[in-house]
Amino acid sequence: MTASSTGPVLVVGSGLLGASIGLGLRHLGVDVHVRDASPTTEAVAQDIGAGRSVRAAAAAGEQLPEPALVVVAAPPDVVPELVVEALAAHPGAVVLDIASVKAPILDAVTAAGADLTRYVGTHPMAGREKSGPVAARGELFTSMPWVVCPGPAAGAAAVAAARHLAVDLGATLTVMEPVEHDETVALISHLPQVMSSLLASRLQDTAPHHLSLAGQGLRDTTRIAGSDPGLWVQILAANARPVVQSLHGVRADLDRLIATLEHPSADGARLDIARLMAEGNAGRARIPGKHGGAPAAFATITVAVDDTPGTIARLLTEIGEIGVNLEDMRLEHSPGQPVGLVTASVEPSRHTELVDELQTRGWKVVQ
Amino acid sequence: MTASSTGPVLVVGSGLLGASIGLGLRHLGVDVHVRDASPTTEAVAQDIGAGRSVRAAAAAGEQLPEPALVVVAAPPDVVPELVVEALAAHPGAVVLDIASVKAPILDAVTAAGADLTRYVGTHPMAGREKSGPVAARGELFTSMPWVVCPGPAAGAAAVAAARHLAVDLGATLTVMEPVEHDETVALISHLPQVMSSLLASRLQDTAPHHLSLAGQGLRDTTRIAGSDPGLWVQILAANARPVVQSLHGVRADLDRLIATLEHPSADGARLDIARLMAEGNAGRARIPGKHGGAPAAFATITVAVDDTPGTIARLLTEIGEIGVNLEDMRLEHSPGQPVGLVTASVEPSRHTELVDELQTRGWKVVQ
Repeated sequence: MTASSTGPVLVVGSGLLGASIGLGLRHLGVDVHVRDASPTTEAVAQDIGAGRSVRAAAAAGEQLPEPALVVVAAPPDVVPELVVEALAAHPGAVVLDIASVKAPILDAVTAAGADLTRYVGTHPMAGREKSGPVAARGELFTSMPWVVCPGPAAGAAAVAAARHLAVDLGATLTVMEPVEHDETVALISHLPQVMSSLLASRLQDTAPHHLSLAGQGLRDTTRIAGSDPGLWVQILAANARPVVQSLHGVRADLDRLIATLEHPSADGARLDIARLMAEGNAGRARIPGKHGGAPAAFATITVAVDDTPGTIARLLTEIGEIGVNLEDMRLEHSPGQPVGLVTASVEPSRHTELVDELQTRGWKVVQ
Repeated sequence: MTASSTGPVLVVGSGLLGASIGLGLRHLGVDVHVRDASPTTEAVAQDIGAGRSVRAAAAAGEQLPEPALVVVAAPPDVVPELVVEALAAHPGAVVLDIASVKAPILDAVTAAGADLTRYVGTHPMAGREKSGPVAARGELFTSMPWVVCPGPAAGAAAVAAARHLAVDLGATLTVMEPVEHDETVALISHLPQVMSSLLASRLQDTAPHHLSLAGQGLRDTTRIAGSDPGLWVQILAANARPVVQSLHGVRADLDRLIATLEHPSADGARLDIARLMAEGNAGRARIPGKHGGAPAAFATITVAVDDTPGTIARLLTEIGEIGVNLEDMRLEHSPGQPVGLVTASVEPSRHTELVDELQTRGWKVVQ
């Protein structure tokens, strides 16, 4: 594969995401330079092959060529000033940023009187559980959405550069206006984070032997509550307006539910609860499933297995032999038990056959 | 394996859970009779082998032996009257129920003046995505918690019968007082359900192309919002008091967050947000991981794979060859892409070796 992106590319901020962009572009043969506020982070990024350290080049008296593209991959709260600085310092370059909130950055860059024709905000929605360049992978963006959010003044060349970067790194490209992007991520990313944190916060004083009863529901709903507070402070503060708007809706529903549950035997109380649950059903049903398909289109099967890698591989091999494709799967464990539960989503039309066939082969199909 | 439970056992209510109890006991050779308000449900339960239908026996003029144990497995709102009825109809039998709320049932049975020495409330915390006896499995309770909640008047024989049933069906036994149980499930099961429904409810009017950006965070936090409203109305209404108590805590935090985000540039605003996030971290960190071990004890590795069962089985086989045990794993898909991401938790001490070894073998390690 050859790159559509034109180098040299200067990556400003070489943490997990910046270094991953550098690595991915280097794999495609693009010339990359990396810079970071931390000399150590910048040196590590160079060491892992994410690009040439600007500091190291300067120390060696080496003249780096002028970049054609600057990607600002710094923490959200310093992005506007770094974008403005890059537009001024590199008058021939397109400048992109990859922060997870877009309209406030465009506003700040506009207010600074910078050259908006060469700037495009973008947001690669790549997950991660670690930070820093050591955790970087060129494949981090593979199959993940990358939203490109050009402002009204963005030039065609700048928009093309943003699109090329996303496609070069294997991401799924989406184009959206900055405000539309921010409202969307407030709902699908920032609101879930807040709700998960609010829920997990309630567990702070719970006795360990009570939490040992926790099931997959609690684990799933609180997983992202483990996220980095430092990053989320910046995201929530930057996108406060649309997040607050959604939170007002949550509060109205919550107030209604509290009032109902304070008098659970009152006339209409059960209908009120049922309505809230049904509204949750309706919202949940709108989330698309795998490959953008219908969300509820798959049947699930759960098999109890011994907790050894060989057993699970054998189960998957046999499911393959039966000729059924896995749409999704998950291995779960129950506290205190050396038995795992493998839950797989499969085409509904193959479900009964798969259950029968696995039982015939001696597997313990749980549900 | 032989059963500790003494038959005949009469299961009252032969839906998913009742029929699964019947099936599990029948596998152990215990004599089981099933009864259900719905003649069809009762007939299906007999057909799948969950026990002898009481109606069918009566129609055949067959005299069923008096039960030694009655398990009431009906919907929560009819459990108290069925327990009272069973205690009166079968004066030699121990009577258990398996509803997910315990104190209100004990209160109602007490108020009815029933024989409390022979009654014990229990709660098997078995998950399921379907209902009805057709979905029943004798293994449904394998490795899941089963909470036994004897009231102060419960006799030793009744408590022993409850413990034997849980152990016979492969569950992990926990003993707790009814009020303690209800407060615990309010927090670890009912509150997550409410939060998930409140969150998912916000998605009702979201455009499909916005929801196509949804990541695993939104999927995880809203998964249980797909639950059955009919069942949850009964659970939330029955356990309203402790649920409301937790919801007041959520509302206080939510009000604080809304006030903060309405003025995100005010002094102290960022500290307030950071505090909420950190409280979520602290609560999340208390949830035990696999085998009851420390939650954050594992390192994760994510590998991008072709979406075929053979590929995933091969990956797991190779991880086994490398000699690393999987602690947990999950297969995820991104909308619109035929590429899956397998995320596995492994012992931190083996993480680097596993990453290196898999990359050497040509796997695409994403993070």
